[in-house]
Amino acid sequence: MRVYIKDYYSTKFGELWEKSLGDLISEVISGLLSSSGIDKKRIDAVFVGNMLSGMLDENLLLSAKVNDILGNLGIPVVRSEAACASGGVAFYNACQYLRAGEGENVIVLGVEKMSDFCMEDVVSALASALAGEEQQAGLTFPGAYALMAQYYLSKYGYTEEDLAYVAVKNHFFADLNDKAHFRQKISLDDVLKSPYVADPLKVLDCSPISDGAAGLILSAERSDVEVLSCCVSTDTHTLSGRQSLDAIKSVQRSSEKAFARAGVQQEDVDIVELHDCFSIAEIIIMEDIGFWRKGEGGQRIKEFSLENPFKVRPVVNTSGGLKAAGHPVGATGVKQIGEVFLQLKGAAGARQVPEAKVGLAQNTAGSGGLSVVSILSR
Amino acid sequence: MRVYIKDYYSTKFGELWEKSLGDLISEVISGLLSSSGIDKKRIDAVFVGNMLSGMLDENLLLSAKVNDILGNLGIPVVRSEAACASGGVAFYNACQYLRAGEGENVIVLGVEKMSDFCMEDVVSALASALAGEEQQAGLTFPGAYALMAQYYLSKYGYTEEDLAYVAVKNHFFADLNDKAHFRQKISLDDVLKSPYVADPLKVLDCSPISDGAAGLILSAERSDVEVLSCCVSTDTHTLSGRQSLDAIKSVQRSSEKAFARAGVQQEDVDIVELHDCFSIAEIIIMEDIGFWRKGEGGQRIKEFSLENPFKVRPVVNTSGGLKAAGHPVGATGVKQIGEVFLQLKGAAGARQVPEAKVGLAQNTAGSGGLSVVSILSR
Repeated sequence: MRVYIKDYYSTKFGELWEKSLGDLISEVISGLLSSSGIDKKRIDAVFVGNMLSGMLDENLLLSAKVNDILGNLGIPVVRSEAACASGGVAFYNACQYLRAGEGENVIVLGVEKMSDFCMEDVVSALASALAGEEQQAGLTFPGAYALMAQYYLSKYGYTEEDLAYVAVKNHFFADLNDKAHFRQKISLDDVLKSPYVADPLKVLDCSPISDGAAGLILSAERSDVEVLSCCVSTDTHTLSGRQSLDAIKSVQRSSEKAFARAGVQQEDVDIVELHDCFSIAEIIIMEDIGFWRKGEGGQRIKEFSLENPFKVRPVVNTSGGLKAAGHPVGATGVKQIGEVFLQLKGAAGARQVPEAKVGLAQNTAGSGGLSVVSILSR
Repeated sequence: MRVYIKDYYSTKFGELWEKSLGDLISEVISGLLSSSGIDKKRIDAVFVGNMLSGMLDENLLLSAKVNDILGNLGIPVVRSEAACASGGVAFYNACQYLRAGEGENVIVLGVEKMSDFCMEDVVSALASALAGEEQQAGLTFPGAYALMAQYYLSKYGYTEEDLAYVAVKNHFFADLNDKAHFRQKISLDDVLKSPYVADPLKVLDCSPISDGAAGLILSAERSDVEVLSCCVSTDTHTLSGRQSLDAIKSVQRSSEKAFARAGVQQEDVDIVELHDCFSIAEIIIMEDIGFWRKGEGGQRIKEFSLENPFKVRPVVNTSGGLKAAGHPVGATGVKQIGEVFLQLKGAAGARQVPEAKVGLAQNTAGSGGLSVVSILSR
């Protein structure tokens, strides 16, 4: 059974003080139903990705909340949690559901509400996706990715300025995305002068704490954009269990499987949305997917002209990425696929990549304990 | 694609102070691998049901933890949360995965660690599966089910003694189950003399706080026990949204679909494991599945002789149910299916129901916001 994407809707990402978790879910569901024109009675199931509503808001069993918002249709509503890859895993479950022939149309919904809570609680809730021994040692996610960055820069002889290209490019794109958390261009100098969070990562190397929700309608009925593959792989929970800090095996494994399943290769891909939670992640992931050779990324990232980063293929993170479009963790994996969908439909407006035919979305959990890779084509 | 159950393993349920969440997961995985003789490299994916490890233990991204325990196979590990039906939903996702032809063999794992934490925190974490407005009003789960019990008893003219039959029967069975939390028989008098938790529910009407884990190997390869259907349905999150307090629509919806899909009827079912989180739940659920007519349950429950409850069909909760086998919430849905599997295999030992051919497992989330019904046959 083939799987197609019919429609995509996203709320604005940012600090949405005036909107609750339920408001965000409602906005996405009505947005999807009205823009697709599909009757809600034709929706057979909903798959929800969310990381933190239990820990931050004492709000579990989102299935029942979503069913209420749908007007008590009584259909299956399934929540997944895989830290920052919760949205990607919800998409994965939805694909299996349709491939199994269980239904015709489903909604995949990613949602996170983070900005209403005490920042200390948010940081500690996020850190709960680290392994227990890492939490006990006081490691945080900026710390974990800083370790990878230190290792990568020193092993291959790159500098903090090389890393800074990631954020400048992603802010360039976010400026063209009216749903983005940060719609402003920044310079290399801005990044380099921003304060350290965890050496060598500075504030402008890091994705923000955002609120937001994003949703897709997937269908077994033929439509313009097809899901060629969606694969999930895992790696060790701790960094110390890894063979090397300059590679994320779950990304290698999931993308290898996804390419084989889709029957396409790296050079066929026109656009990529990937998990740039920290600048170093974009570089390592581009290498692990096989777009760049290992160790090349610190140089290859500079091929994106900072005045016009559209010219290189694949174009990376046209949404603005996690860095600048924002990172409401459960929503991110769904938004990434949505951005690829918009590009393949030719509906990405000011940030449209011409002639985009094949796109890839990559969503990471934690420091790489899990990765989801999806390949789409028109 | 058909789905079969190859094997089942469960830890003891109870207050397992000496075992961590990881210990429980390890025990189930090694138990399954050694009893089935299957090489772990033939496991294609793992589906995990867990409710509370984030809220109680700051332990999210169980996918990576499970991958570590498997020796970093790198395979997909997918966690679901649907409150007390987390295990049932993990089973549901696993069935879709196999039906989609994604793999040959998967592990479904339900796990919960509850007894190590401050009881106040556990009760409040459990209550996070109630709707926000219910939490704010101070409702708890014993309170929610007490409202259903009050309504049911007064509408149909039953007494607290009628309810007490549920617990006595389930303790009878647990006494025969060496994995059960409470292996002791109790009398009607014991139930009636136990202190009130939420009028009319007393301590011995309520399932306990337990630790435990249970796992299944599902396979696309033909085996003795087949999964004829597994269906999920939802209902309103709040009790106040329901048409009536003596029925749970998600149970009606999910069982109706499951019977239609399986091509069997109520009278074909020999054994049932259902979600007796409180005594009233067993009675209402038996009616909602259609084994008993609405309002009849307070009388029909007495058909189970308290000295030998094996004689009625279907026999209900031979594991001891949530009440007496224990209720490690994320594990419960998996244990229920495991008990049905053991009965259909003729491997249920002292509590074996003779000639059991068709069995049904029913798992509820919250006060009925979601229900999973699975029908199995040999």
